[in-house]
Amino acid sequence: MTKKLIAEFVGTFWLVFGGCGSAVFAAGYPELGIGFVGVALAFGLTVLTMAYSIGHISGCHLNPAVSLGLWAGGRFEAKELAPYIVSQVLGAIAGAGILYLIATGKEGFELGGFAANGYGEHSPDGYNMMSAFIAEFVLTFVFLFIILGATHSKAPKYLAGLAIGLGLTLIHLISIPITNTSVNPARSTSQALFVGDWAVAELWLFWVAPILGAIAAGLVYKYLSPEETEA
Amino acid sequence: MTKKLIAEFVGTFWLVFGGCGSAVFAAGYPELGIGFVGVALAFGLTVLTMAYSIGHISGCHLNPAVSLGLWAGGRFEAKELAPYIVSQVLGAIAGAGILYLIATGKEGFELGGFAANGYGEHSPDGYNMMSAFIAEFVLTFVFLFIILGATHSKAPKYLAGLAIGLGLTLIHLISIPITNTSVNPARSTSQALFVGDWAVAELWLFWVAPILGAIAAGLVYKYLSPEETEA
Amino acid sequence: MTKKLIAEFVGTFWLVFGGCGSAVFAAGYPELGIGFVGVALAFGLTVLTMAYSIGHISGCHLNPAVSLGLWAGGRFEAKELAPYIVSQVLGAIAGAGILYLIATGKEGFELGGFAANGYGEHSPDGYNMMSAFIAEFVLTFVFLFIILGATHSKAPKYLAGLAIGLGLTLIHLISIPITNTSVNPARSTSQALFVGDWAVAELWLFWVAPILGAIAAGLVYKYLSPEETEA
Amino acid sequence: MTKKLIAEFVGTFWLVFGGCGSAVFAAGYPELGIGFVGVALAFGLTVLTMAYSIGHISGCHLNPAVSLGLWAGGRFEAKELAPYIVSQVLGAIAGAGILYLIATGKEGFELGGFAANGYGEHSPDGYNMMSAFIAEFVLTFVFLFIILGATHSKAPKYLAGLAIGLGLTLIHLISIPITNTSVNPARSTSQALFVGDWAVAELWLFWVAPILGAIAAGLVYKYLSPEETEA
Repeated sequence: MTKKLIAEFVGTFWLVFGGCGSAVFAAGYPELGIGFVGVALAFGLTVLTMAYSIGHISGCHLNPAVSLGLWAGGRFEAKELAPYIVSQVLGAIAGAGILYLIATGKEGFELGGFAANGYGEHSPDGYNMMSAFIAEFVLTFVFLFIILGATHSKAPKYLAGLAIGLGLTLIHLISIPITNTSVNPARSTSQALFVGDWAVAELWLFWVAPILGAIAAGLVYKYLSPEETEA
Repeated sequence: MTKKLIAEFVGTFWLVFGGCGSAVFAAGYPELGIGFVGVALAFGLTVLTMAYSIGHISGCHLNPAVSLGLWAGGRFEAKELAPYIVSQVLGAIAGAGILYLIATGKEGFELGGFAANGYGEHSPDGYNMMSAFIAEFVLTFVFLFIILGATHSKAPKYLAGLAIGLGLTLIHLISIPITNTSVNPARSTSQALFVGDWAVAELWLFWVAPILGAIAAGLVYKYLSPEETEA
Repeated sequence: MTKKLIAEFVGTFWLVFGGCGSAVFAAGYPELGIGFVGVALAFGLTVLTMAYSIGHISGCHLNPAVSLGLWAGGRFEAKELAPYIVSQVLGAIAGAGILYLIATGKEGFELGGFAANGYGEHSPDGYNMMSAFIAEFVLTFVFLFIILGATHSKAPKYLAGLAIGLGLTLIHLISIPITNTSVNPARSTSQALFVGDWAVAELWLFWVAPILGAIAAGLVYKYLSPEETEA
Repeated sequence: MTKKLIAEFVGTFWLVFGGCGSAVFAAGYPELGIGFVGVALAFGLTVLTMAYSIGHISGCHLNPAVSLGLWAGGRFEAKELAPYIVSQVLGAIAGAGILYLIATGKEGFELGGFAANGYGEHSPDGYNMMSAFIAEFVLTFVFLFIILGATHSKAPKYLAGLAIGLGLTLIHLISIPITNTSVNPARSTSQALFVGDWAVAELWLFWVAPILGAIAAGLVYKYLSPEETEA
């Protein structure tokens, strides 16, 4: 169990350091910057790379909503939920910490919104709370739907990491302008702790909407394709 | 059968919500927007992710032209055509509805052309009806050619979802400026219903050209490689 | 044999229509255009998609230099070279023809350089003939090196189409500014026929350099890893 | 052994020619240039393509830090370290040489920083030495973590090349603005030799930080998942 938790810690560290890091360091670089396409690719690749690296150790959840959705779909044991989620949140915070440390080594660095999630006036493109909630709910619903399907015993399991990682890329391609894209409460928490203020005040949405979406997907997918063999 | 139809509904919902959503929300965001490359990637990834998620449930068609092309190629039964196509169109409309709901939560949102397909003065780059028809016919022909080949019993079936999804990305890389890219009557219908007017008037082309292209591909591929084992 | 030649015809049609088409239609679209990244992705995906679609029919060469390099590496029979190359060139010309037909349906269309390859003053970024020759030689050398390796009996053969297609993407990421990237005499010929003039005058380089590079790779790889089982 | 060393030479040649070449030739091309996203993709694809091409010959390290990290993780023999590293450095220098040769064939070419790595005033975005060191250490740590995981006997080995190549893409998406991204002492050395001056003076960091990160990853991963069967 310790090894599983270390794996989840390292993996979620990488998701935040790589995904949020690409946004902070490289998205807006003049003329050559990677933009939202690059950030979307980066988030997806953090999951893809870890899926093949630690998938056989911990299952590579890296996200409390994923652990809860897998539990709702009958693929993960309730007793492991709490330790997994704690490891994920701690790993995410560590990732944000190293990110902050490197970022402050640039002259004139300003924290700004870091890579925090928000709605209303803190939505990158001004979407209100209701739009943000629907988007996070729907996107996490489909994210879990993809995860539950791609890891199903009838699916080609070796390609699950590819489909799931690129699914997260797709989710970011759609929704960075809406909420800066969460679908992952650990990722949101890690950034909010450094930004404080409004980012903490709006953090509830990035726990509630993803988790509800994930659990709904777990129940629906279980109905569609009940038989399965592994988490 | 009900489960297959729910899967097609969810999958086509995702194709429209993800593909058209990326275009509406993120393509033109100032400086950091994803542009046509991002939209092309998004459309392809909707199919790739669903292929691994519901491929083992419904075959993951998500497109009336695909269902008809597979039928013409001898891979899909005629009696399932009607229910599949109805589910696909309804799922697409649901995707457009949620997309519309989120979009209206942005202050100053204007529907404009949504992500509708068009030709002539409604072609993004001013291509006439004949160019639009040829493009949609040829691109859907090759799309089905790829699908029929990649799911052939002699092909490495586990990679079909990858090849087909990235094939749709490629199709969008080529043709967004021509028609905004359809190759999928359900996707076109879902947008036209919200835009009305010219988008409904031009909708016929985005049923006729893709379906003719798909059926032609079914017949050609069946000649080239007759033996096959599954849909 | 007829079926193999039809497959090579369709595949090379797609390489030119998709690859050069993305360049002509979508690369320079204002603000949202796909740029060289999109064109590079498109060329690679034409090969990736066809590899899974017709790989089991013809081997999916789509390129005279590839056929010759495979022959030099001991993977392809001499007697099939001529018919394969003829089919590839005809397919490429057909692809350019449909591309031209669609392009002329845009008001104010001007052929310009189409997607022809060139050097010196016709190099996109002004590289001289020597640089162009070295680049085409080296890039085709490595392209064949990748093909010969990824289709080797000791390599995971199901992933060859992925590696080879993305290899062609990589080649374009490097060299579009140098020669507009050929590594494929059929592709170059198809564009030169429509542009005439300088494009025909410079066409020799895009036959000689790729073919020499391909044959060199065939000989080197055969030395490195002699045993192999299939074309 | 000779064949292994030739393979490492060719592979590292390709990593430098393709990765650094995309940066030098294509990143900053006006309007259509590939930017950091394209360069990140190019570096990753050099490794992905070579993994499927020479993976079964030499294991496809292409990087002294990778060889040392695999040794620390118990996957590579100490006696092969020196010849591998020498081949990698020589291949990288050859790649830089051909790159230089082609680049000088463009009128008005100026070497500038080539694609050298640097910190402080030679960091693309002005990050100081400490940030550069942390970034190179952490990124190489995770790179080896991915490699050790994806080539582990419990992971789907055929997909290792994909995960590792895209891992290198991700690393570049994050960190080009920080150090121009090394994680590979051979790549850094090859560029520094042409740039001289500050690039040579700062080269130590791009040997020390990646190697320490790689060795740390070897030790951590060995603890997490001790059993393994092949290099």
